[in-house]
This record gives sequence, structure tokens and C-alpha cells, in this order.
Amino acid sequence: MIISTPPVLARARDEAGPAMRAAVAKLLPELHGPVQYHFGWADVDGTPVPGGGGKGVRPALAILSAEAAGAPATAGVPGAVALELVHNFSLLHDDVIDNDCERRHRPTVWALFGVGDAIIAGDALLTLALEVLFEAEAPGGTRAAAALTRATSAMIAGQVLDMTFETRDAVSLDECITMECGKTGALLACAASIGALMAGGDDRLVDALAAYGRHLGLAFQAIDDVLGIWGAPAVTGKPAWSDLRQHKKALPLVFAWEQATGSERRELRDLLSNGTPTEPAMERAATIIEARGGRECAESFAARELDAAFRALGAADLDRGVRAELVELAHFVVERQS
Amino acid sequence: MIISTPPVLARARDEAGPAMRAAVAKLLPELHGPVQYHFGWADVDGTPVPGGGGKGVRPALAILSAEAAGAPATAGVPGAVALELVHNFSLLHDDVIDNDCERRHRPTVWALFGVGDAIIAGDALLTLALEVLFEAEAPGGTRAAAALTRATSAMIAGQVLDMTFETRDAVSLDECITMECGKTGALLACAASIGALMAGGDDRLVDALAAYGRHLGLAFQAIDDVLGIWGAPAVTGKPAWSDLRQHKKALPLVFAWEQATGSERRELRDLLSNGTPTEPAMERAATIIEARGGRECAESFAARELDAAFRALGAADLDRGVRAELVELAHFVVERQS
Repeated sequence: MIISTPPVLARARDEAGPAMRAAVAKLLPELHGPVQYHFGWADVDGTPVPGGGGKGVRPALAILSAEAAGAPATAGVPGAVALELVHNFSLLHDDVIDNDCERRHRPTVWALFGVGDAIIAGDALLTLALEVLFEAEAPGGTRAAAALTRATSAMIAGQVLDMTFETRDAVSLDECITMECGKTGALLACAASIGALMAGGDDRLVDALAAYGRHLGLAFQAIDDVLGIWGAPAVTGKPAWSDLRQHKKALPLVFAWEQATGSERRELRDLLSNGTPTEPAMERAATIIEARGGRECAESFAARELDAAFRALGAADLDRGVRAELVELAHFVVERQS
Repeated sequence: MIISTPPVLARARDEAGPAMRAAVAKLLPELHGPVQYHFGWADVDGTPVPGGGGKGVRPALAILSAEAAGAPATAGVPGAVALELVHNFSLLHDDVIDNDCERRHRPTVWALFGVGDAIIAGDALLTLALEVLFEAEAPGGTRAAAALTRATSAMIAGQVLDMTFETRDAVSLDECITMECGKTGALLACAASIGALMAGGDDRLVDALAAYGRHLGLAFQAIDDVLGIWGAPAVTGKPAWSDLRQHKKALPLVFAWEQATGSERRELRDLLSNGTPTEPAMERAATIIEARGGRECAESFAARELDAAFRALGAADLDRGVRAELVELAHFVVERQS
């Protein structure tokens, strides 16, 4: 299915893009190289690159969230910028931690500029995110800063679980969902509610938007997990079978493990253990995971979470236009191919 | 000169120690290993170690700062915990960035647990610090969180400058002081004022305490720089000439560079460039730096900054006992031998 790009993404880029560049410009010039390269705004030698950056889902959520509280889109801009900064802090550090050499079809920051630059640039983006919220002096700026801090903390906890799972043979479905809820759900929940928080929206609205974001995050992560095994490198910008390569315990493997026989489990364990698995080993493992329903279960899980996200919106008395844009954005996020 | 340990350090340990352990206990159990090891509370295998931890200068400052605003010491505890967490976030990351294998006579966290664990543990401590302030619900909790965020940002900027200086031949005195003001001054300024901020102290008091902390930080760093070249490894817990080994442009070298002849500069450049300098090269470089007044200038700089710290206290109408304890603590910090 071809999903057209929701107009709110371009609107969010127009609203939050300049604020994003203004925030980054406040960093020491010594950090501009790795940061602008990471955002896709510049080449490794600093030459500006047109376009660039991610899809901007988090900024779009933040802006719709402000509008959900009856505020103008501009009220969501500091939240949009802060979320994008925290998200990119986590990408910079996760790429070092996971030893990932490629992101969005380009070498990662640590691979080009060194581990030290990637660590300190990530640290700088995280503190900059909070500075942006404090400086906004919005009615709900403090609540937003506290919510972003909690979400960041949950995201870090999710990453810790993801790391420890790599050294374990098996992980339960509950453990896997807890990990993904932290790693992806927490920050999307924050993105989807931060605009309402900044604008002083009531608790019921904030909670409904956060629940929508959390379910959307889980749906997104489940699809990302499918792409982490079966995604085409030309599309994902990552190596083939990247999650298997890194011993990730993501949803497809965890679902398949639950259905696998004892001998299949032994085979999977043998195929995926011991350093970097070989290409044929990963191909064989992917075949077993698919045969045991790992791919299908992850896709149905994503569909159920998407549905839960839509139901969560029903708990708030939302403007019809904003609601429709949140629904459209969610479809786009979950049905994307990369 | 033998300086006796100021009683406020033990008092701060009694007040903030349990809160510190309670905050760390909230982290995922998977993080307890590297974090408790880092704080010196446990061995690498998790066996508890009696004592441990740093001297606790930052917690002591935070507590005196609350008392300076007429609040009880307990009002300074969340600030004390937050400062200690941010300080240790920076140590965890800086050890990776600087490739330091030893701290306080023990292997560093990254050297024992791996780079990934050190990065994520640092990230977790930074967000935990802000959570502690938000959860305190003190009158000035938001101002304190904003101040800590700004201080962290300045500290990161200082670390960035420190890193870029390593790749340069020469650095001016102004550049070096700007770097050290960020790297050390900002967080000590925050420590010395955060208790007053939390307790709702007035701007004049907060500013005076922050100025005291900033000058104290510069004095401390100047002495640390001297120890970074001439400190005995058995005392500092670091390798001999560690700053020269790492191409650091700290105060003694920068002062000496200003006085050095063209041929001495060429010799210093040759001795200290190209990978890790040899032991004889570092010994010879230290001799030139000392002969050109680098050590003496750094020590006088520390004395002047200490004096400026005391003068800053004069701008506030401080309780005599609190003032005396701040003075005593400052002497201890600057005249310490390790």
C-alpha cells in the first residue's frame, strides 16, 4: 500500500525547522560539525546539504498536541524542538553502544568523528532540549520539562534492557514489551502530549494524548523490529538482518521463540550466538522465525497497538480536524516501509 | 601544610548519603553494577565496599547553601544529590572520551564494564539528577532544575573545548580560563547556590553564592592542573604526567607557553606531539614548564581565585557560622594534595 505523506509533516517542518536550527546554533561552534552532519544538514566537511533530517514525526506530534489543547501550532514548537533533540541524543549514543556504523545510508557520527565526539554531542543535545523548554516560559513549561525528563529516563531504561537482552538466550514477551515501551513508547507518549502540557491543557487531554503516543510508539517499534530482520538494506539504510547480527531480542524473535520446538530453539541459539552470525546463519534463523509466526505476530501486534492508539484518542474531546490529522499521522508511521 | 577535614563534609555525607543511595536504587537493577562500582560503594562483582565515594565537596556546598538561605540542611539534600549525580555523569563520560583507564586508584567503568555501560550509566545519572529536583517539589525546584540544566550545558561546553584544545599546539590564557570556567566553575557555582535556590533565597544571595562557587571551581581546577603534571600517581590515582600524556592544554602549560622562547615552544611541541609522548619527553616537558613559571603561575592563579571566592561571600549578608564553614571548605578544596 502506498501511503501519501501527511501534510502535517511539512507543516511541522515549517513551524519547528527554523527553531530547531536556532537552538542548535546556540551550541559551541566546535560541536556544529558532528551535530549538523548527524541531522543530515551538512556533509562531513561542513558543506550544507539540502533537505536532510528525519521524517519529523515527533515535531508533528508535538504541534498537533498543542492544537489539541486549542493553542496555535507555535505553542508546540519548543516541545517539538526538545523532542527532536532528545531523540537525536539517543540516536548518537545508541549508535556507539550498538556499534552501528550506518544510519540513514550514511556513516554514523562516531564512525566518522570518533566516539568522544558522538558522546559529547549527544550530551549537549540532551541538555539543550531542557534549556529550550525552560527558556520558552510557557504556562506549562515546568510540567513539560518534568515530563520530558521522565520520558528520557524511561527511554534510557528501555535501552539498558535492550542491551542486557543481547547477552541472554531468551526473553519473555512481557519483558520485550516492557523494553519497547521504554525505548520507543515513552518518548512518543511525551511527543504526543508535550504541546498540550506546554499550553496548559487539562489532565484528561494530556493523558489521552500520551496513551495515543505510547500505543503508536509500540506499533511503530513492532514494524521497526520486522524491518530489523526483513527490511531491505537499500530502504532501511541498515545492513541486512541487522537485529539478528546484534543479538537483539526484538518482537519477531520473541514471538517465534514462544512457538518454537525445543530443537528449533537450540538451532536458533546456535545460529545466533558466538560473535557475529554468518550470512547463511542469519538467513536460516530468519526463515525459522518467519515459519514460527514471528513476523506475522509482530505485524498483528502493531495493528492492535495502532487500534489502541485510536481508541485512546476517543477518551478526549478532540477537535475533529486535529483528531483526523493524528489518525493520518499514525497510519503513516506504522505503514511506512523504511 | 596539613589541612584537617572540615566537619561539614561528614555532615553532608550523613544528610545526603542515604538520599543518594535511595535515588540510585531507583535505577534499573541492570545499572546497579557499574553505578555502585563507580561510586566506590561496591566491587566489580557487586560486593559492598565500606566507605567509598568522593570527598563530597558538592553535597557539602549544596547543604551550606540551603543554610545560607536560612533553611535547614535537609532543604539542600535534593540539590546535593542532583549535583553529585551530574558530577558523576560527567566523570563516567569523560573517562571514555579521554580514554582514562584509572580513577581513584581503580579501573574506570568503561575499562571494566565496557564503553556502552559507561555511556548509558552516565545518561541515566544525568536524567536521574533532574528527576530528583522535580520530585522534591520545593518552592524553588523549577529554578534549581533550570540552573542545573544551564550549569550542565556549560560543563559540557567546557569539556568540548578541552577536547578540541588537545588537537591544537597552543591555546591562549583566556581560552584556557573560559574552558575551565565551564568545565569546573559552572557546576561548583551551581552546587554553591542550589540549596539557596531550592529554599527560595533572594537573587542577591544566590548570585553571591554562585560567584563564590565559580571562583572556588577555578581555584580547584588550577590546583588539579598542577597535580595533572606533578602529582604523584600514588596520591592522585592517575598515571604520572597524565595531562601531558593526553595533550591537555591546562593552566601550567598555557602560562609557561606565554613565557617560553621560540625554541622552547618548538621543543615543547616536539616533545608533546605525536601520539603518546615518551616518559623522558614528558619529564623534559615538565621541567621546561616549571622553569618557565607554569607551576608557580597556576598556583598564584589558584590563590587569587580563592581570594575572589571569599570576596564574593562579602556581597551577601551571611550567617557567620555558614560563612566560616564555606571559607573552611574552600581552603580544604584548594589546599588538598590529591
